[in-house]
Amino acid sequence: MSQFKRIKAGIVGGTGYTGVELLRLLAQHPGVELAAITSRKEAGTPVASMFPSLRGRVALAFSESHRAELTGCDVVFFATPNGVAMGEAGALLDAGVKVVDLSADFRLKDVDEWERWYKVRHAARERIAEAVYGLCELNREAIRGARLVANPGCYPTAVQLGFLPLVESRAVDLDHLIADAKSGLSGAGRKTETHLLFAEASDNFAAYGIAGHRHWPEIRQGLAQAAGREVGLVFAPHLAPMIRGIHATLYARVTREADFQALFEKRYAQEPFVDVMPAGSLPDTRSVRAANVCRIAVHRPGETARGGDTLLVLAVIDNLVKGAAGQAVQNMNIMFGLPETLGLEQVPVVP
Amino acid sequence: MSQFKRIKAGIVGGTGYTGVELLRLLAQHPGVELAAITSRKEAGTPVASMFPSLRGRVALAFSESHRAELTGCDVVFFATPNGVAMGEAGALLDAGVKVVDLSADFRLKDVDEWERWYKVRHAARERIAEAVYGLCELNREAIRGARLVANPGCYPTAVQLGFLPLVESRAVDLDHLIADAKSGLSGAGRKTETHLLFAEASDNFAAYGIAGHRHWPEIRQGLAQAAGREVGLVFAPHLAPMIRGIHATLYARVTREADFQALFEKRYAQEPFVDVMPAGSLPDTRSVRAANVCRIAVHRPGETARGGDTLLVLAVIDNLVKGAAGQAVQNMNIMFGLPETLGLEQVPVVP
Amino acid sequence: MSQFKRIKAGIVGGTGYTGVELLRLLAQHPGVELAAITSRKEAGTPVASMFPSLRGRVALAFSESHRAELTGCDVVFFATPNGVAMGEAGALLDAGVKVVDLSADFRLKDVDEWERWYKVRHAARERIAEAVYGLCELNREAIRGARLVANPGCYPTAVQLGFLPLVESRAVDLDHLIADAKSGLSGAGRKTETHLLFAEASDNFAAYGIAGHRHWPEIRQGLAQAAGREVGLVFAPHLAPMIRGIHATLYARVTREADFQALFEKRYAQEPFVDVMPAGSLPDTRSVRAANVCRIAVHRPGETARGGDTLLVLAVIDNLVKGAAGQAVQNMNIMFGLPETLGLEQVPVVP
Amino acid sequence: MSQFKRIKAGIVGGTGYTGVELLRLLAQHPGVELAAITSRKEAGTPVASMFPSLRGRVALAFSESHRAELTGCDVVFFATPNGVAMGEAGALLDAGVKVVDLSADFRLKDVDEWERWYKVRHAARERIAEAVYGLCELNREAIRGARLVANPGCYPTAVQLGFLPLVESRAVDLDHLIADAKSGLSGAGRKTETHLLFAEASDNFAAYGIAGHRHWPEIRQGLAQAAGREVGLVFAPHLAPMIRGIHATLYARVTREADFQALFEKRYAQEPFVDVMPAGSLPDTRSVRAANVCRIAVHRPGETARGGDTLLVLAVIDNLVKGAAGQAVQNMNIMFGLPETLGLEQVPVVP
Repeated sequence: MSQFKRIKAGIVGGTGYTGVELLRLLAQHPGVELAAITSRKEAGTPVASMFPSLRGRVALAFSESHRAELTGCDVVFFATPNGVAMGEAGALLDAGVKVVDLSADFRLKDVDEWERWYKVRHAARERIAEAVYGLCELNREAIRGARLVANPGCYPTAVQLGFLPLVESRAVDLDHLIADAKSGLSGAGRKTETHLLFAEASDNFAAYGIAGHRHWPEIRQGLAQAAGREVGLVFAPHLAPMIRGIHATLYARVTREADFQALFEKRYAQEPFVDVMPAGSLPDTRSVRAANVCRIAVHRPGETARGGDTLLVLAVIDNLVKGAAGQAVQNMNIMFGLPETLGLEQVPVVP
Repeated sequence: MSQFKRIKAGIVGGTGYTGVELLRLLAQHPGVELAAITSRKEAGTPVASMFPSLRGRVALAFSESHRAELTGCDVVFFATPNGVAMGEAGALLDAGVKVVDLSADFRLKDVDEWERWYKVRHAARERIAEAVYGLCELNREAIRGARLVANPGCYPTAVQLGFLPLVESRAVDLDHLIADAKSGLSGAGRKTETHLLFAEASDNFAAYGIAGHRHWPEIRQGLAQAAGREVGLVFAPHLAPMIRGIHATLYARVTREADFQALFEKRYAQEPFVDVMPAGSLPDTRSVRAANVCRIAVHRPGETARGGDTLLVLAVIDNLVKGAAGQAVQNMNIMFGLPETLGLEQVPVVP
Repeated sequence: MSQFKRIKAGIVGGTGYTGVELLRLLAQHPGVELAAITSRKEAGTPVASMFPSLRGRVALAFSESHRAELTGCDVVFFATPNGVAMGEAGALLDAGVKVVDLSADFRLKDVDEWERWYKVRHAARERIAEAVYGLCELNREAIRGARLVANPGCYPTAVQLGFLPLVESRAVDLDHLIADAKSGLSGAGRKTETHLLFAEASDNFAAYGIAGHRHWPEIRQGLAQAAGREVGLVFAPHLAPMIRGIHATLYARVTREADFQALFEKRYAQEPFVDVMPAGSLPDTRSVRAANVCRIAVHRPGETARGGDTLLVLAVIDNLVKGAAGQAVQNMNIMFGLPETLGLEQVPVVP
Repeated sequence: MSQFKRIKAGIVGGTGYTGVELLRLLAQHPGVELAAITSRKEAGTPVASMFPSLRGRVALAFSESHRAELTGCDVVFFATPNGVAMGEAGALLDAGVKVVDLSADFRLKDVDEWERWYKVRHAARERIAEAVYGLCELNREAIRGARLVANPGCYPTAVQLGFLPLVESRAVDLDHLIADAKSGLSGAGRKTETHLLFAEASDNFAAYGIAGHRHWPEIRQGLAQAAGREVGLVFAPHLAPMIRGIHATLYARVTREADFQALFEKRYAQEPFVDVMPAGSLPDTRSVRAANVCRIAVHRPGETARGGDTLLVLAVIDNLVKGAAGQAVQNMNIMFGLPETLGLEQVPVVP
């Protein structure tokens, strides 16, 4: 792909699931040269010895977070826990490096709300205004000129893409949106917590975070931007015994009749990574496994029955791709003027 | 347990999952003698050669459905596909045998609605009025005197138990109930359909039956009985990659404030098989695995926020136990005046 | 079950998988009164709040390891990590309490070998001689009179039961036994290690411990006892993506022809918990799920072909039941003169 | 990739797992144009409506098996059940089309043995001699000139690649090779058989085909070719509850000492798709998930102990890629003089 000058990319914190997924995607990206990957804990360890799946494909070793290495990059991805990027992104930006932050540090515009949910003081309040929320289908133009992109969370990606056409058209009751979302275990990260063990999570299903989940303000912020007003949202996340995948089942009460199938098809007609399926479809999460796609189906189950004014939207993504690393690469492509689909054309892995 | 005269029990159609689960429970039931199990296709095959888990525990072989054998029983369970019990139950009832039908044949009181959903003519319309819908927590007294019990479906058990206190108290908007339900694969039965294969269903999640599911009218009928009026319901079932378990996430809009935790605790205080968990609990399906329990938790996620008038109820059961075979045995215990918990005290299997 | 005086049982370290499984079994055991359960870390926490599956079934809270509580017991089970029982069992034994140790502290008779494998100094060398290795089918008589029983490991139970008839009859090459064993994840315990996470272990399969596994000397010791001589063994354990279950595939070269099916059937004819299946059977792990059974099948795949002198034995157990807590209860039953099967008659959970 | 003239490829029988995997790989292959895909049963159905994962990526519909369409191809892949290719390949070959048969029809050179194992009369005995067994690492030169390639089975690929260096060097006892192999469920195909259901196969593990499996003669034929003499083999396949992946655990008795690690490294030094891992490695199946790689590790567990003359080789592949569709594409690349790795550089999907 000689027509592209290869972008030098660095990754901060590459030992989690979004990190290794970034590595998988960037290693195959024809416009990117992987220049550095840092991990304080694993400094010196070859990436491929921690992730044998990358043997022969990624020659890098994890390095200490030497600023020099990273400031030599064109773009740096933060695949770190919350709280790291806000401390380190500034210096990179000042050195002319573009930043895509896969953590939550720059996602909320209201810093007070951010601090309420993340329980620490924000370390780079002055950068929040500049950060662009990287939901490409909502903010593409702003992303094009951005230096700092806040890559959306996994649930927020699926839930916002599923609600966007309804919210933009104001055809539903915006005070009573319901998002019943189910996620695979990789969404919780590569953390050694008891409830994430195979013997706990397998053959099991449960809700969590009902009392309050950090993705709730993020979703509300995005939908409010699209609606031009505040929205009411009940968000109920669940853990499903699978590795990857988010299935968002969205409920909204129709307040103004419309051809909702057409509404969705029109809204996403030009989007390379949103697939509005034919009416009546039932998207399954494996149909997007390991690929940068969101598939959506719109249902009106009981048109004439009691409760028939409720619309259902089903939206599926791979939480690690369109919900994290894939969307980050999509953002990079947009930021650097590359074709938006470059390096993101993997076909979903089925079965 | 010499104080009980052993009830002679027969099973029609014991080769499916509800059948083998009935066998597991009845083989351990101190008040029951397993007298016959029929299967046209497997006649002559020892039960334990089809299900090695029963080696040494069930000595019976499947037999042709000879009426003689069954009419000698005190109770016969139908663990057959829909459409069989309505043809065969009558003769047994006439012979003085009590019947618990685990299929859907006698669940709906409105035979026209039944025929719309099940797409065949009902073969025993005259028996429908007599049949008692066997949701023990709703109809215990009627079950006590019943000869024919229609054992509830798995989803209807979880959804009705979760909604009952709200519906009976009429404290929520009865026209807009939402039940987002997730089921393990055994709920679909032991059918050789492509989408039930391991390589299709594992590491995958999808909705199904959004356009209309046979459990929808069954749930509405039960809730209408409890409410004393029609109810509106959106019912969205999903398949989760696990063997057993139903997790129902229920949404209702509060129309009259109340102490909902107390409401649930009071409603189920005397119920041996309904466990109202402490406020804030997140029941997981494995906490009821292989046991005859429904665990329920009540949530009010955003009391003061927009959308804060929505109540969430989480209800979990093992679809094969409280959602099928266990409830059938519970019904039998009630019908025969046995202690209701007899033979149903298995501790859930965790992990 | 008034004919039995209830045995007062205590559990040290009940927060792991063998602990909660002991609780499940003892809560249903008609001859046992659960008197105490200790956990330093969880002291004060009600057992049922950590394991909601035990709500309404176990009223105890975890307590500090007060000796008084435990010395008032008739029997104490150690469900602790290796290294605890050897420090605490002595005082209990001296107080007249019988001890069943589910850890590895007293399994090896050769203390030097024990210290090589477990990398610490043994703290109770003087108790090792007294300890009886609790493989009931091998040492029943010794267990009857024992005060201290070393409950076998999970792999050793399956592998020894599979090899015993061959080794006792000396009909195979005792220098080249091969045990290719596959275990579910619960066998690794409730430890928060990365490789045990759902997102790592699901949809995955790998060997481990090939260079040396602590169960290797334990198996060799038991087989040597049975053979009356040293044996050579290659032991290759693997992790399979399931919660429970061990499948041991055993290979031995025939050195003296015999009717091997008959040999196994005769050896285990009187054993309540070993099921020799018909020739040609293929036991699956779920056929023993949650039950105290070992099922065994004997195969001679290529009688006349090259390599046809190799015998295959397939042995399956539930690692948490016959491979841990169930066998511990079986040992208790024997030690206290109870019927050996008391409280252990659960039917396997299928599907 | 304008430097390659695109090869026109057809697929016969694309509705199974090897078919859809071929579609995934060929849709991304820069040197291939997908020209036709046939399925009698699904004629007229767009491929993407059966496999939504291919929406937007494969525009073809299944067609009746019109010879015209296929004879216009440069290469035709048979992803059919056994017995189809032998009837249809001849006409294509005569029309100048190259054929890669993913079924077993042309794998065995000894037609009598083939008929014994496959229980039908072979319909194209005269083509068997011409067919080249497509294990690229064994037969690359012959494949280069082949018109008809018999693509190896999944187990045979893993087992042969694991044994090849040992067998070629004759350093082990060739009469007593043991292959204990574990496969994910997709290896059984997209067949609606009860034992392949999720509710049967999940959380379960069992051996099968111990008495005789069709891959046994295939493996023996390949190893005999490599050894220059007959070999003795015990082959024990097992089903593991995962979608993809084969893990072969191979046992061989050393008859002549050697540096086995070096032996393997040297044998496969030039192979792009065989990865000999460092000594002591434990390859897991996910490290090759969805990629065309075989990873191998060599172990000598008990050098000085009894039984220490046994060597262990661990070999993992994705059964649908290196074990089927990927190897078929690799064969196509070789047959058409393309770079062998073209279109096969997907990075394994982890987690």
